[in-house]
Amino acid sequence: MAECKDKAVDLLKSKYAKKLYDEVKDLPIIDYHCHLSPKEIYEDIPFGNIGEMWLGGDHYKWRLMRAFGIDEKYITGDADWKEKFMYFSKAVGYAYGNPIKDWVALELQFFFGITTPLNEATALEIWDKANEVIAEKQLSPRKLIEMANVEYIATTDDPCDDLKYHDLIANQGSLKAKVVPSFRVDNIVLAREENYSDYIAKLSNASGIKITDLASMQRAVIARMDYFVERGCKFSDVGVQGFPKRAAHFGEANKTFTKLIAGKKVSDEDFDGLWGYLYVFLGKAYAQRGMVMQLHLAVTRNSNSVMFEKCGRDSGFDCVGDAFDVSYIKNIINIMNSEGGLPKTIIYTLNPTMYYPLVTMCGAFKDVVIGISWWFCDHKRGMYETLNTLSELSHINSLVGMLTDSRSFLSYTRHDYYRQIVCDFLGGLMQNDEDVYAVEVAKALCYGNARKLVEGK
Amino acid sequence: MAECKDKAVDLLKSKYAKKLYDEVKDLPIIDYHCHLSPKEIYEDIPFGNIGEMWLGGDHYKWRLMRAFGIDEKYITGDADWKEKFMYFSKAVGYAYGNPIKDWVALELQFFFGITTPLNEATALEIWDKANEVIAEKQLSPRKLIEMANVEYIATTDDPCDDLKYHDLIANQGSLKAKVVPSFRVDNIVLAREENYSDYIAKLSNASGIKITDLASMQRAVIARMDYFVERGCKFSDVGVQGFPKRAAHFGEANKTFTKLIAGKKVSDEDFDGLWGYLYVFLGKAYAQRGMVMQLHLAVTRNSNSVMFEKCGRDSGFDCVGDAFDVSYIKNIINIMNSEGGLPKTIIYTLNPTMYYPLVTMCGAFKDVVIGISWWFCDHKRGMYETLNTLSELSHINSLVGMLTDSRSFLSYTRHDYYRQIVCDFLGGLMQNDEDVYAVEVAKALCYGNARKLVEGK
Amino acid sequence: MAECKDKAVDLLKSKYAKKLYDEVKDLPIIDYHCHLSPKEIYEDIPFGNIGEMWLGGDHYKWRLMRAFGIDEKYITGDADWKEKFMYFSKAVGYAYGNPIKDWVALELQFFFGITTPLNEATALEIWDKANEVIAEKQLSPRKLIEMANVEYIATTDDPCDDLKYHDLIANQGSLKAKVVPSFRVDNIVLAREENYSDYIAKLSNASGIKITDLASMQRAVIARMDYFVERGCKFSDVGVQGFPKRAAHFGEANKTFTKLIAGKKVSDEDFDGLWGYLYVFLGKAYAQRGMVMQLHLAVTRNSNSVMFEKCGRDSGFDCVGDAFDVSYIKNIINIMNSEGGLPKTIIYTLNPTMYYPLVTMCGAFKDVVIGISWWFCDHKRGMYETLNTLSELSHINSLVGMLTDSRSFLSYTRHDYYRQIVCDFLGGLMQNDEDVYAVEVAKALCYGNARKLVEGK
Repeated sequence: MAECKDKAVDLLKSKYAKKLYDEVKDLPIIDYHCHLSPKEIYEDIPFGNIGEMWLGGDHYKWRLMRAFGIDEKYITGDADWKEKFMYFSKAVGYAYGNPIKDWVALELQFFFGITTPLNEATALEIWDKANEVIAEKQLSPRKLIEMANVEYIATTDDPCDDLKYHDLIANQGSLKAKVVPSFRVDNIVLAREENYSDYIAKLSNASGIKITDLASMQRAVIARMDYFVERGCKFSDVGVQGFPKRAAHFGEANKTFTKLIAGKKVSDEDFDGLWGYLYVFLGKAYAQRGMVMQLHLAVTRNSNSVMFEKCGRDSGFDCVGDAFDVSYIKNIINIMNSEGGLPKTIIYTLNPTMYYPLVTMCGAFKDVVIGISWWFCDHKRGMYETLNTLSELSHINSLVGMLTDSRSFLSYTRHDYYRQIVCDFLGGLMQNDEDVYAVEVAKALCYGNARKLVEGK
Repeated sequence: MAECKDKAVDLLKSKYAKKLYDEVKDLPIIDYHCHLSPKEIYEDIPFGNIGEMWLGGDHYKWRLMRAFGIDEKYITGDADWKEKFMYFSKAVGYAYGNPIKDWVALELQFFFGITTPLNEATALEIWDKANEVIAEKQLSPRKLIEMANVEYIATTDDPCDDLKYHDLIANQGSLKAKVVPSFRVDNIVLAREENYSDYIAKLSNASGIKITDLASMQRAVIARMDYFVERGCKFSDVGVQGFPKRAAHFGEANKTFTKLIAGKKVSDEDFDGLWGYLYVFLGKAYAQRGMVMQLHLAVTRNSNSVMFEKCGRDSGFDCVGDAFDVSYIKNIINIMNSEGGLPKTIIYTLNPTMYYPLVTMCGAFKDVVIGISWWFCDHKRGMYETLNTLSELSHINSLVGMLTDSRSFLSYTRHDYYRQIVCDFLGGLMQNDEDVYAVEVAKALCYGNARKLVEGK
Repeated sequence: MAECKDKAVDLLKSKYAKKLYDEVKDLPIIDYHCHLSPKEIYEDIPFGNIGEMWLGGDHYKWRLMRAFGIDEKYITGDADWKEKFMYFSKAVGYAYGNPIKDWVALELQFFFGITTPLNEATALEIWDKANEVIAEKQLSPRKLIEMANVEYIATTDDPCDDLKYHDLIANQGSLKAKVVPSFRVDNIVLAREENYSDYIAKLSNASGIKITDLASMQRAVIARMDYFVERGCKFSDVGVQGFPKRAAHFGEANKTFTKLIAGKKVSDEDFDGLWGYLYVFLGKAYAQRGMVMQLHLAVTRNSNSVMFEKCGRDSGFDCVGDAFDVSYIKNIINIMNSEGGLPKTIIYTLNPTMYYPLVTMCGAFKDVVIGISWWFCDHKRGMYETLNTLSELSHINSLVGMLTDSRSFLSYTRHDYYRQIVCDFLGGLMQNDEDVYAVEVAKALCYGNARKLVEGK
């Protein structure tokens, strides 16, 4: 990602920071966790206009507009893209301190060459200019991926997914970036959800294994996992609010599981036992295959029932979850470790009050680390907080690096944002010009560590 | 509030900050939540001396003196005002980093024209000078309110209060500031307190409605609410430690309520159900009347039994409460919203570890926002923390603005403190001199948003 | 501790900070809580090499090496000291932001006169140079204590300890620093540990009092406490994860205790009652003897079962514990206070999310204060956080001062680190050169307050 003369966002406060940034700014991007659509990457349809590009599905932006008091009509309603863009521009103009203000500036500069700040007064001019660029450069998913120098994309996929588009992309062979699936197990472990038996039926179908009990379900999961691994899958994921307090043994877990698929109710304690069992089972399976286990924790979904009814999932009504005891996570990790099946693990939490117990717990196990600031924590202060806490309580070099976690192809500029922050952070700790180790750490945090992980090193 | 040439407290670190401050420093004050006494405003008796003014009832100052090791005799004991003032001055002189050190400097400069820092060595000189000013300018409650350019004062009142002094002030018509009551429902919802049936009897009396069950109690509450609203009440309030885990339906709540007024014990679960029911009932009633719901959370009262026996309530032995699950608040808010009865809501917590789940929960509902840093959080870093967190997770412009929450007529200088912080914060985020939106946000946060709320917009 | 021309670590950002530092840098050290071995102090055997000095038992350093990915062989394994030193040096070179990087620089400069930063490239040179200094100056425990100008050392000792080495040191009379025991009661209150009855037997032996019930156990504890007090003991201590929710009365506590020493199981609730009872009993006994009660809270021990099996306790697998309700602590403190038996108390927590409720709870009781940042919190930002929070919510002058909490004789340089931070913090709050109170506070925080505590003032 090339440097611009006049940076729209410049976070490099010291000369050392600038020096480090020169070393990392052009490194390729490894996006080891995102929500990009492999279908969209394959089909590669050019974008219509910047309103659609920005506001078609980005619930971060929708939240900002709502918090500014904009009517839902112009957010997820039936207003046209231009109207929505105008209102969004207005909200951004006043959004001091919000990361979206910076991200917008980075995206406008990098993909569109626009350095005018976005606000109510400049919205129309930017609408025209950006749409011109879209038409002229034929901006499309792949075009953006290539402009951003992306080397690796791990999408997020359900175990039942047939990965058709991953195969098509691979067979096509024209995209420089490698696009691989990740194994996201929410639907497997959230066994108390209303439609769990439907999901289990789907899993039976996908795997070709008739699921009648826990053992057959495990075989089905393993079959899907191997299917994913054959397609280059290196990362698993799960995104939930809490964590099981304990892990049951197979017999007990099996009892609970068969109850659940029969549509019966189970107690909190029984469910916790099964949930913990499943984590241990999955963890061991990941470890055997050299896969990385990702845990995304402390998220509360769909908080507003009225709006959930109206807009569905992923519409900007999720929240940071309440903190829960890290000792629960420790228990499960400790079981995996004691039984020789602890995979490389990255733990993300939306609730920063968990950092101290979490980072020190990670430090008690090999290759268990926290991830970079995620979602609501993914802003300047949030990044510094993670870098600081990790440095103080663990070792800065244990950070894997940046990911976008995004649904938008424009979000790759967040890697530049992160790289500036990393360089500013390290630059502030350098004592002299000959400090070569800071350069090494900067490179590791911006590319090297993620590369190693992808290569299974 | 006019600027002084040499500011006793100057928090404006950039030229942009200074520019913004020039725009907001003279705006009137809307104090939409305080604990000022309408009786004292009506009677308007001039103050005797600065010792009494400062130390007569301000438990913030008493805590500081205790933490410095001063004997209780000179705090709430029988020492005279001059002695108490001397000890207080000594404690302040050493109180680096405590907001009281800054507030004292602001009050001395603004109301007394004194710019000498207060400490052991200067105490006597300041005692004499300040008392001269009190006598000369006849400093009294109204005099201070007028000096501070206050436009609106919402006091905090029990639903049983006859609001006599509010009526007297209104009839008198001589005070520029509008003084209106707020509807504080602690005594209604804390239904497990020892004297609850006494309170219900009082509520019967005040409303003229015989309370025999939940339905009649609700009618009584509504009668009082309308009595308050007729007198200009726009704000409700409640200040408690926790939050109900659930809301019961009417039948169950009624059962629990009748038990309680009969002096019987109820289980935690039953009480929670009633408590939640009452919140939903109150919330809907506020919404119907265009009132604002304020929730003051995470406060532990009267922690030291020995001193409570000796000094009573509000003597400086309250503490920040332990964090509790924001999901409980979400549940109740979500019920109000689903049933079409969610009022404009401002949520304050004393425990900053709740900010992340709380601010994001607010973002999932229309017109639900967090309030500015309250009580133990009301200091420079606390304000920046609120401004930062709100900016990052929501939209800075959603902040209503400053309130004093104070029992002291001198506390209006805290608005100046807040305005400096807001301007410094925004100034630090401006990129150039032509950034007109920052001026708008500064004005909104210092006056406009509170004005709108008061006007029901 | 004399100032160096070129400070290896310089945290003094303002001229006022430098001025304050000049006033405190040479004050003696009061180390009122550490884990130094009285045996090693008595025997005073010169160190072999810097590898052994640094890596013989310091689990802080072991954690850093593990987080950097170094093989356990070079941490607690059978590699030789030189190899271990080389790997440690490498990990430190990259450890930006970790306090160990600063501590190492301070120790190298102060004890060895080495100002070269430690890293992979300089490791060999520093190994040679440091070992020369050790040999030349005959560096030994006492030598380091004397170099650091230590005046008072309170070690941490089990009530059953015979304190032989404390007696030997006292009789010898050649060490300037006073070395006294502290009364660490973990083994008394953790009554549910597997070997509790073994411990009670040991306590019987040590005290000469046959323990058959709670009353006899209390007599035994008091006998040992008095034995400690005769040897100059002023401080007690306990280090645990949580806190009892309640305190039982004697009868109930006695029942639970006799069950436990008979090897029977007790419920969580019964155990909590006994645990709370014991705290109240101990607190009153401390108060009667003018002893200080120290509580070290929110620590989770031995998180990794595999490594615990391999390396045992205190090997770097402890973690920051989950936050728990401060109201539990308040309850017990309030009982002591109500019954006239509240000793001077210092409360430390590893979990900073407890600070707000904790610091305000302390403010509700006389002579109950929080301690300076401990263990995982003992770094630059952690110290500033404690100083800030204490200043804002209490009074900065209530801080007792620094302690090392260390097993290493080299750790005394951490007092210099702390002093720089205190001076930088206070310097940043001074408004002019004539501010004499800042000097007084700096001296109190670096020496005076700890001195007073030791003298029972």
